[in-house]
Amino acid sequence: MRVEILSTGDEVLLGDIVDTNSAWLCGQLTELGIRPDGLSAVGDDIDPIGQVVGAIARRADFCIVTGGLGPTPDDVTALGCARAAATDLELHPQALASMETFFSRKGWTLTPENEKQAMLPKGAVMLENLHGTAPGFKLEIEGCVFYCLPGVPSEMKEMFTGRVLPELRDKIGGREGLVIHRLTVFGLPEAEVGRRLKGFAKAYPGIRLGFRAVFPLIEVKLVKTVKATGNLASGTESCGVPDAEMAAAVTWTADRLDHRVVSFSGLTLEQEVGNLLRRAGQTLSVAESCTGGLISHMITDVPGASDYFLFSGVTYANSAKIGILGVSEETLIAHGAVHEETAKQMAAGARRAGGSDWAVSTTGIAGPSGGTSDKPVGTVCVGLAGPDRVSARRFVLDTGDREKNKHLFAAAALEMLRRALPQRN
Amino acid sequence: MRVEILSTGDEVLLGDIVDTNSAWLCGQLTELGIRPDGLSAVGDDIDPIGQVVGAIARRADFCIVTGGLGPTPDDVTALGCARAAATDLELHPQALASMETFFSRKGWTLTPENEKQAMLPKGAVMLENLHGTAPGFKLEIEGCVFYCLPGVPSEMKEMFTGRVLPELRDKIGGREGLVIHRLTVFGLPEAEVGRRLKGFAKAYPGIRLGFRAVFPLIEVKLVKTVKATGNLASGTESCGVPDAEMAAAVTWTADRLDHRVVSFSGLTLEQEVGNLLRRAGQTLSVAESCTGGLISHMITDVPGASDYFLFSGVTYANSAKIGILGVSEETLIAHGAVHEETAKQMAAGARRAGGSDWAVSTTGIAGPSGGTSDKPVGTVCVGLAGPDRVSARRFVLDTGDREKNKHLFAAAALEMLRRALPQRN
Repeated sequence: MRVEILSTGDEVLLGDIVDTNSAWLCGQLTELGIRPDGLSAVGDDIDPIGQVVGAIARRADFCIVTGGLGPTPDDVTALGCARAAATDLELHPQALASMETFFSRKGWTLTPENEKQAMLPKGAVMLENLHGTAPGFKLEIEGCVFYCLPGVPSEMKEMFTGRVLPELRDKIGGREGLVIHRLTVFGLPEAEVGRRLKGFAKAYPGIRLGFRAVFPLIEVKLVKTVKATGNLASGTESCGVPDAEMAAAVTWTADRLDHRVVSFSGLTLEQEVGNLLRRAGQTLSVAESCTGGLISHMITDVPGASDYFLFSGVTYANSAKIGILGVSEETLIAHGAVHEETAKQMAAGARRAGGSDWAVSTTGIAGPSGGTSDKPVGTVCVGLAGPDRVSARRFVLDTGDREKNKHLFAAAALEMLRRALPQRN
Repeated sequence: MRVEILSTGDEVLLGDIVDTNSAWLCGQLTELGIRPDGLSAVGDDIDPIGQVVGAIARRADFCIVTGGLGPTPDDVTALGCARAAATDLELHPQALASMETFFSRKGWTLTPENEKQAMLPKGAVMLENLHGTAPGFKLEIEGCVFYCLPGVPSEMKEMFTGRVLPELRDKIGGREGLVIHRLTVFGLPEAEVGRRLKGFAKAYPGIRLGFRAVFPLIEVKLVKTVKATGNLASGTESCGVPDAEMAAAVTWTADRLDHRVVSFSGLTLEQEVGNLLRRAGQTLSVAESCTGGLISHMITDVPGASDYFLFSGVTYANSAKIGILGVSEETLIAHGAVHEETAKQMAAGARRAGGSDWAVSTTGIAGPSGGTSDKPVGTVCVGLAGPDRVSARRFVLDTGDREKNKHLFAAAALEMLRRALPQRN
């Protein structure tokens, strides 16, 4: 079975965006046991889209297309596909009805521009869009099935997962499936993770080991191909499929990565910290300087965070560190804002102000400027206040990029908290 | 001139990495005034690489290839290109010498695996790699010039900038360049932006209009192709190139989008708000409930934010709203946390606690749960406290996704602040 992915849009070809849609789709297909044969991208023009779609139709069995389904005149994927299929567009009543439902749920009015989105190639089957206005469609051209999905990542993902994946699962039904196990790791470079797991292939020849940097974590992926039966949905994650060899391989891996393993089920730091806090019935406050609100933003991205997260004081100015967190002016004068002692007082102050069991704090220099020879860009002091004690550590973690430094600082703080929290057993 | 980009590597097709190389190359070519006609990716296999390279050779004038030049057996770009050119590999003495220089500078020893990297297609011209071991090469196949560069981003970028870009500049000397102008818009759906700008093509036939959703903003891009002279670096952004027609088109566009235009130079809300605050010499504090730190995170992603940003209180718990921001318990009992009155008191409290000129606040329901019939998921109250008055507004903005709701709430708050701040001129 030959599978391709096509992404459309001037924004891809002009370099305005990085095409994360294609990467995500490749990952999804891979997990399903399907290796994509080719990726391509083409601009928002009818002729080139028609030519590329035509060429793919002649060589592939199915193709997933993203982008170009919007209401504006530069969205021409439907027209390009119609051209390749030597047909025209027609108003698709089901697509229009689906858009009307979506619009009325939102209390919006359908405009003529939106109605254009219900013009699909003749013979196409509409794919409903639950998260946006643009319906997708499925169209067979010269024996190749094209699934055309929106370019907005959240809409594309929902449509792929809900409408396309079940069909592909059926198509490859009775073939092979994958059992996948993910560990997340923090604090080791990818090359070092690879070095520590060097004997893996010899010890577990039936399991494929993969690494992926999900900055600042490394995801270690163990993939085993199994005969898929009628019941086992191919691509199911290992949790549902007990597999003794896989369990042994996970233990082998975790032993070599030791306390660097954040989660045995692929969780992020903020998800794992949230689970540990909820399990212990404890609460958290945060005091942020250089991370500027990122730690609280990460924590509150996890649904249900209000169960354990009480307060964060983002104290960028020294006056706010003093006034709100009760950091002593003497400490700031003697040591400066970026110091272990300041970090400790910030953590203790946030714990007190928030009335929580735990508090973590950051103060440092994210860059690009503000560094000194003593305290270069990348210096961060993390403070931790718990029921028993207050402590702090200094790190120098410079990636050369302000935003990445903020993420690394936030991860260092969450990791220090994670290790201090009551662990699962 | 027809230009394509080809990226090779299983890691791209398996979805293990996002292909940022191609996006970077597209951006570089666009700035040079060259619009790439197509992107593609293919796995680490000789036959498919040979086929794709052959197909590109027949339709394009030049092509930039990345990846597959490494020392391991799965690196087969040179072999694939040789196959497409119907020739063989041969040891390239200049490539070997260049590698020897690089290795001796590092104090490393050349291994037989590395020597493989000096095997290039017959007739190829070596491109020196100053940052790594893999030499690149240039090869003409059927009139199309292929530049084959390493896959490691830093090596690829250096080789492109140092060895490829000068050649391309020569090639397009005296040809066309692009003048680009970007406006960012908030508060209108993409379809409505398109509708308002409907007469653009007629009014300015020489300028191409594009839209891009950079959630929750819409970027409107005006692109004009101009004759590039020897002096005008083609692809410079409009700021450097006064162009009366472009200036008129920007005014025409802005008139139709009215106060929805956030920035005339493509800035984000947080960048524009930062500029307005810095220009006015004023400062800002924030009080966040449902946005959970995201507003402060956005503000502090802008370098130099410490000039105007003092404090954010992320008060997830009511106790923190009362204790830290001084919200009255009576208000919380009478109206609940999600209410205009609470938002006003939060903003006033943050302004007082931070000692700033301005404060903005959010309290709402990001979901997925927590909504009621009165206050459904997506309800957010934004408070604004300034030198003269305190005000609040309620919005219902539900995208069906917790993370996107947080971003939309944060943008609504920053937009309310932006409009209240002293404007330019």
